[in-house]
Amino acid sequence: MHHLDVPQTLGTLAVMLAAAKLLGVAAQRIGQPAVLGELVAGVLLGGSVLGLADPTSDTLYLFAEIGVVILLLEIGLETDLGKLLRVGGESSLVAAVGVALPFLLGYGVCLALGQGSLVAITAGAALTATSVGITARVLSDLHRLQEPESQIILGAAVIDDVIGLVILAVVAGLTEGKAPTVLGVAEITAVAVGFLAATLLVGWLVVPPLARWIDRFALPGAPTLLAILLAFGLAWLASVAGSAVILGAFATGLLLRRTPQARQIERGVAPLGHFFVPLFFVAVGAAVDVHSLNPFNPANHSTLAIGGLLIVAAVVGKFAAGYAPFWFSGNKKVIGVGMIPRGEVGLIFAQMGLAAGVFSAGLFSAVTLMVMVTTFIAPPLLRLLFPPSRSARVSDPAGG
Amino acid sequence: MHHLDVPQTLGTLAVMLAAAKLLGVAAQRIGQPAVLGELVAGVLLGGSVLGLADPTSDTLYLFAEIGVVILLLEIGLETDLGKLLRVGGESSLVAAVGVALPFLLGYGVCLALGQGSLVAITAGAALTATSVGITARVLSDLHRLQEPESQIILGAAVIDDVIGLVILAVVAGLTEGKAPTVLGVAEITAVAVGFLAATLLVGWLVVPPLARWIDRFALPGAPTLLAILLAFGLAWLASVAGSAVILGAFATGLLLRRTPQARQIERGVAPLGHFFVPLFFVAVGAAVDVHSLNPFNPANHSTLAIGGLLIVAAVVGKFAAGYAPFWFSGNKKVIGVGMIPRGEVGLIFAQMGLAAGVFSAGLFSAVTLMVMVTTFIAPPLLRLLFPPSRSARVSDPAGG
Repeated sequence: MHHLDVPQTLGTLAVMLAAAKLLGVAAQRIGQPAVLGELVAGVLLGGSVLGLADPTSDTLYLFAEIGVVILLLEIGLETDLGKLLRVGGESSLVAAVGVALPFLLGYGVCLALGQGSLVAITAGAALTATSVGITARVLSDLHRLQEPESQIILGAAVIDDVIGLVILAVVAGLTEGKAPTVLGVAEITAVAVGFLAATLLVGWLVVPPLARWIDRFALPGAPTLLAILLAFGLAWLASVAGSAVILGAFATGLLLRRTPQARQIERGVAPLGHFFVPLFFVAVGAAVDVHSLNPFNPANHSTLAIGGLLIVAAVVGKFAAGYAPFWFSGNKKVIGVGMIPRGEVGLIFAQMGLAAGVFSAGLFSAVTLMVMVTTFIAPPLLRLLFPPSRSARVSDPAGG
Repeated sequence: MHHLDVPQTLGTLAVMLAAAKLLGVAAQRIGQPAVLGELVAGVLLGGSVLGLADPTSDTLYLFAEIGVVILLLEIGLETDLGKLLRVGGESSLVAAVGVALPFLLGYGVCLALGQGSLVAITAGAALTATSVGITARVLSDLHRLQEPESQIILGAAVIDDVIGLVILAVVAGLTEGKAPTVLGVAEITAVAVGFLAATLLVGWLVVPPLARWIDRFALPGAPTLLAILLAFGLAWLASVAGSAVILGAFATGLLLRRTPQARQIERGVAPLGHFFVPLFFVAVGAAVDVHSLNPFNPANHSTLAIGGLLIVAAVVGKFAAGYAPFWFSGNKKVIGVGMIPRGEVGLIFAQMGLAAGVFSAGLFSAVTLMVMVTTFIAPPLLRLLFPPSRSARVSDPAGG
């Protein structure tokens, strides 16, 4: 009756979570953030090594997406919007330069290596969007989320997501053979910005009274469930409005931070995060095909060459963007490095390119390699430049 | 690339959780347990009314099954095995009579109404297994889990599950045209009992040291994740061993209760329960087809007649079983009523009968009606006979 083998799915989830946690602890033991170990767990469990974690399965996909939603909800709960707006100028400039420069560099690399214009545009686009998830998780692991550098990075990554959505829509149109119109681009931008603004405005009127009303029932778990309901509901609404799921989840966190139950919600959401979020990083790692990256196979050499140059373009472009807000007195290197990881967003571009027939399998692997390396080098670099804050050894208040 | 529409799935999950929580609160307001409202939410959202919750979708099915696993994990964490063994005699007798009597009554009703022998056996079998989930949830809502009556009910329901597995395997063989052998029946029984015994024996040697080892890392969420990993892993192992998923989850709870982190695990698992468990009750409710139960449609009359008699057989058979341990000085009515709900287990029999072509669509609806009514009448009756304990107003320690 049901196609899904539930016991097997439960077993697979247990293996993925155990591997993520074990390698996460191992990473921490050698002085790296846990997220690095979780990504390696994904690569090892993925289709190209052990074949246990199938990144194309609906189940892992859904759990990974719920993981991103809960991650963004948690980030929103920890984000002081006032602080974010105070660094709005810096963030906007970092985002703008960090989109334009990698795009132009990636576009140039592909044209120089004899690729067509459409391929170059799609590959360049894959270099633009920052993975807020990975950087935020590393900054959180280092207990540095409240520093100005982190706030600039997170602000820029959120703006990046808005820009990334526009580029994604434009590239999707191009790969389908359509010419992008100024009106269409303007519309997609307006929707994303408008959704966030409208949600926050309406939300600040509705959510605090709603939270107070729910508090009157003294139901176990009610504030946590309210947070999940709002995050899922606004994620859906964001998608219906033509914007990104993560924007809705992030907005929910920002809104709930203003309620008296914010701390209680953080504690209640944490166990859901411990369950779903590692599955997201496992899914990202599992999408990596290690065979196409074997340097001893001559067939992979051109892939590795393009991949190598794309990595340079990706790292240099984002790192330089960190220096764009020249007036900022903090650590500009940290900002540049924090913008490097592409994670899931870069993979969406890569997979779109493959599905549309724009990318060859080799070019897909090259872009995937770029995503993997940028994702893998940023955490240790960030840790090197931005050692854990003194509060890092404080144990988790959720206690679960 | 992916067939699953993630934003839509998130929206649907939000609606299901919101409806379950709202109707759960409404049920409590009129003096009923929350689970009744959650089941009604499922019926309303199900395919035959609003069509929002599709009980045949892989997603709802998986989330519902994870809900049962977490529910049984939580029940195991709250189950004092010593107390359970002290009522072992009572439980075993209640379980044995509560399986035999409803089976014979259901079998007789079907034969009397002119159904074939195979139909009568399958329908009788559908009357045997108690839904431990629904009764346990109601007893937990009433803060009565620690009373001897509750312990007898839970013990009998667990034994029922073991017997139910055997009957399920035998009926599956019969509907496939095989003759059940004594050896086969004995083997299935031995596997279920053996799995539980082996898991508990090995687990009591392995789990407490494992829990102490994990505690040394002081990782946020580690004990909770250990609980989820073990529950999923043992659920999978139980299934591989040829037994039921819920046995593995229940065993995990029993094992973790003995670790020093038991309270911490309970607090950490609670938010996962608040998320997944209502989805199980919504899924059970959503499987009900209200159209086939419309009394004004003459085509439904024979269905309703069989359904009505099956309900009588189901209620009388289990209620009488409560009086089987004649020496028990507690409230025998409570035990009888606590055994009434069939829930998901009855539905598995019904769906197996439909899939194998043994049940007509009408008979499937009749059995479904029996499951629904037994599930719906038990909570208010239980509440009537077993008013909430004085500690009922104590707020949730998880605080989330």
